[in-house]
Amino acid sequence: MHYVLKICTKDAKGLIYRIADVIFKYHINIIKNDEFVGEEMFFFRALLEGEFEPKAFVGTLEAMLGERALIELHEKRKKDIVIFATKESHCLGDLLIRHYSNELEANIKAVISNHNELKDLVDKFNIPYHLISAENTSREEQEGRVLECLENYQFDYLVLAKYMRILSPNFVRHFEGRIINIHHSFLPAFIGANPYKQAFERGVKIIGATAHFVNNNLDEGPIITQDVININHEFSWKQMQEAGRNVEKNVLSHALDLVFEDRIFIHKNKTIIF
Amino acid sequence: MHYVLKICTKDAKGLIYRIADVIFKYHINIIKNDEFVGEEMFFFRALLEGEFEPKAFVGTLEAMLGERALIELHEKRKKDIVIFATKESHCLGDLLIRHYSNELEANIKAVISNHNELKDLVDKFNIPYHLISAENTSREEQEGRVLECLENYQFDYLVLAKYMRILSPNFVRHFEGRIINIHHSFLPAFIGANPYKQAFERGVKIIGATAHFVNNNLDEGPIITQDVININHEFSWKQMQEAGRNVEKNVLSHALDLVFEDRIFIHKNKTIIF
Amino acid sequence: MHYVLKICTKDAKGLIYRIADVIFKYHINIIKNDEFVGEEMFFFRALLEGEFEPKAFVGTLEAMLGERALIELHEKRKKDIVIFATKESHCLGDLLIRHYSNELEANIKAVISNHNELKDLVDKFNIPYHLISAENTSREEQEGRVLECLENYQFDYLVLAKYMRILSPNFVRHFEGRIINIHHSFLPAFIGANPYKQAFERGVKIIGATAHFVNNNLDEGPIITQDVININHEFSWKQMQEAGRNVEKNVLSHALDLVFEDRIFIHKNKTIIF
Amino acid sequence: MHYVLKICTKDAKGLIYRIADVIFKYHINIIKNDEFVGEEMFFFRALLEGEFEPKAFVGTLEAMLGERALIELHEKRKKDIVIFATKESHCLGDLLIRHYSNELEANIKAVISNHNELKDLVDKFNIPYHLISAENTSREEQEGRVLECLENYQFDYLVLAKYMRILSPNFVRHFEGRIINIHHSFLPAFIGANPYKQAFERGVKIIGATAHFVNNNLDEGPIITQDVININHEFSWKQMQEAGRNVEKNVLSHALDLVFEDRIFIHKNKTIIF
Repeated sequence: MHYVLKICTKDAKGLIYRIADVIFKYHINIIKNDEFVGEEMFFFRALLEGEFEPKAFVGTLEAMLGERALIELHEKRKKDIVIFATKESHCLGDLLIRHYSNELEANIKAVISNHNELKDLVDKFNIPYHLISAENTSREEQEGRVLECLENYQFDYLVLAKYMRILSPNFVRHFEGRIINIHHSFLPAFIGANPYKQAFERGVKIIGATAHFVNNNLDEGPIITQDVININHEFSWKQMQEAGRNVEKNVLSHALDLVFEDRIFIHKNKTIIF
Repeated sequence: MHYVLKICTKDAKGLIYRIADVIFKYHINIIKNDEFVGEEMFFFRALLEGEFEPKAFVGTLEAMLGERALIELHEKRKKDIVIFATKESHCLGDLLIRHYSNELEANIKAVISNHNELKDLVDKFNIPYHLISAENTSREEQEGRVLECLENYQFDYLVLAKYMRILSPNFVRHFEGRIINIHHSFLPAFIGANPYKQAFERGVKIIGATAHFVNNNLDEGPIITQDVININHEFSWKQMQEAGRNVEKNVLSHALDLVFEDRIFIHKNKTIIF
Repeated sequence: MHYVLKICTKDAKGLIYRIADVIFKYHINIIKNDEFVGEEMFFFRALLEGEFEPKAFVGTLEAMLGERALIELHEKRKKDIVIFATKESHCLGDLLIRHYSNELEANIKAVISNHNELKDLVDKFNIPYHLISAENTSREEQEGRVLECLENYQFDYLVLAKYMRILSPNFVRHFEGRIINIHHSFLPAFIGANPYKQAFERGVKIIGATAHFVNNNLDEGPIITQDVININHEFSWKQMQEAGRNVEKNVLSHALDLVFEDRIFIHKNKTIIF
Repeated sequence: MHYVLKICTKDAKGLIYRIADVIFKYHINIIKNDEFVGEEMFFFRALLEGEFEPKAFVGTLEAMLGERALIELHEKRKKDIVIFATKESHCLGDLLIRHYSNELEANIKAVISNHNELKDLVDKFNIPYHLISAENTSREEQEGRVLECLENYQFDYLVLAKYMRILSPNFVRHFEGRIINIHHSFLPAFIGANPYKQAFERGVKIIGATAHFVNNNLDEGPIITQDVININHEFSWKQMQEAGRNVEKNVLSHALDLVFEDRIFIHKNKTIIF
């Protein structure tokens, strides 16, 4: 059996020794471990292998580290996700193909969209598609219907694969640290609507994409992954948008791999990634 | 003899033919030409080879294209530059080495700094070093002394190689389109002071640098070149600063190559680069 | 109407002028043109707009440039392609999604595979799938059946999207300059089988992919596009293979965009790409 | 006091715990540790802080891990290096500037060259320059004189900063794992002489550089760092050479940082880098 152990606690001398000690006493093998100390906090992640009683093991760690320590033990398994999308198919399509080919460490339980353009594509892969339109309705009402829809599914993460709507603080609060978004700029540049138009106006020579956890400040959640590509004066903003598709889908795909393997700590507004 | 011809004019049918026609009639050989049409403007650059009377040639082009066309003919030669720096040596040092090794298409006429730390390094290369302190003096007065100092030199461009002072609009006005700055972030992110600290605060996963022409909006002049490198949570802002040095000097070096080869048009707030 | 004009001929003075002259006389507008001179050859590509008689126009160019000049005039249209694949879905899946979303400048007429694993995926998109097994048969016979199958389709290009078989010289001869392959290494490193295993053995710190035209020397045809990603000692060759998928599909996708827009000249064993 | 502890031994259960145990008992603080298991070997590196008796500490580790374990304890200090160069100044110049500015974690004790072109540059920085010509002499004799010259210096590493001569097996044997070379291609492509000419002939779309430890197979030693840049058909091999300078100096510079911080294990023909 494989597990991921994640610990975040106030830094102190001998922590690695004391944690290794507990692991050793449970006859657990450490396949790989990483640790980082920053701003007086200690972050630790280990990939473990062994047969043991998870509750007892975590209990021992808790007893040793105190109640203010954050301790997570994840059995290795595919995560369950629900994808939100709008009209663009490149990120969603990439996830569908990778899911179909068993390359995604997640099960796509459903796709929710405020438009119907992507239904036919999702149907091909026999995944439930829910159209929850945002037209002629209030944000509150639409989100209410989304929440209702989500109640039918068990999921670990919500993935916004080019979902072109802003989620309300109320909605986000339900899923803290569990919503991943792809934004089509190298944040913090070009926050908000139409980043490619903004990039065109500014005359930049690189464009990019940023995958981040969603919090209640637009495009300001903890960043997971970012990448850029070179452009030049010949690119209209439409051409930037086309050229940006590959970097968007790759950045999201990479971020999700990290999330699904329990490699990420969110601390304040940053990520520590092992 | 080699020349660079640059033309910027309102777009119209047959421009390439008509320009090629003039070039042909002067028995000039086009080694390479590039053109771009954007926002109804036509940009044209050609590398020319031949023996001809420059004034007559430009006159013929002017007669044909009208007085509103911008026409520049540059004889191929090394440019003359004055470098501004403060305390950091990586960009300046790179330019000094490349100048010394004859790899820079420019002559460094002098270095001006508001500090004295770099004097010893510049002296090694027998280049005049002018300390013009900014302490205990007004911006106006200090810039006045800089302008006075510059009067002793003939130069094509001012290169701000990590000059940590903001130039006043009055100063910039003297040298429109002739001041190149290196900013240590991928603009428009992290404008202003301490971009690495800002990057650290934001928790970005890439840092970068931007070379741009200086205008009167801080860090908002036309961008020439940009590049980024990957970082992670382990980087303190000091380590970002260290890691950023190479990307800063490379981005500046690349931008200067483009400037010195007369490859750049500045149009509104953007660059067209051939 | 839009056209792409491609000319390759022995370099001579005044070629641009003379070509522009013909274009002008046919009242054709040049939207964009590029040219390159290398090894005494002149390469020219122009994007043209206008109403004219293609045959007459090309005839005039031929009369002027002589019979040894290569002159191609392509009406702008989607290309027709047949894709070859084996078992891996990432490159094929990416093409299917981009085709479905109308982002590919090509129609996928059919998929041919020597295995059946990808049939279900291709069926979802209602594209003919032909299984032509290579087991218990000679290369000659299998290729004969592939050629037979291809006779049912009109196509411009054959795209080898991870087709894990080597095509015989006889087969390649039928489609000179019309077969594009994606090889999973930065050529010329790691030619042949299992490049990721070779990369693992060598202990490289980057892996990559190369899209190239196929000729009769294995993995030695003219290179179109290449890209790399960073790896480290933690990567097993299986993990390199997984990490390489995105760079493979992006490199192939980029190369195909260039091919389908008639941007490429093949000259000897190299490509000139505008 | 800061130390780097490096351990390489056959993998076994509980190694991290047992090592952490020893460290803890010596009241040493682990600032950062990394470990990797590959091919049944265990690699461990820790940055330590504390006041302790190094010999006793290493002795305890040796007693625990057995005599076949490789255990190194490095006090944090600047390394001493001798640089070999030939005629090109970009890598050497970069090291000189970084050394001068105190950015290099090493002292340059001397520069040895088989030509005299770089003497003036090295003299500026008051570093001994030894011309040991290779003309009109056998390889054996020239290397003999180099070895003689090196006897005057205490050094940790030899850095080949574009030294365009092949070292004999006999010479290399003296400094196993202590010679770092920069090769101007992305190895294993373009081994040997004139990689840019080879790259030009092959028509590649990327060029690169590789820093590696030198062993007795030309350009086949353990790779430390690699990077590439994009090129196109317009590049002559001379222009590739010019464009490659920045990537060469950056790759070498990055590799040296890793070496000087004792971050690298050499195992068989590969590097493990923490």
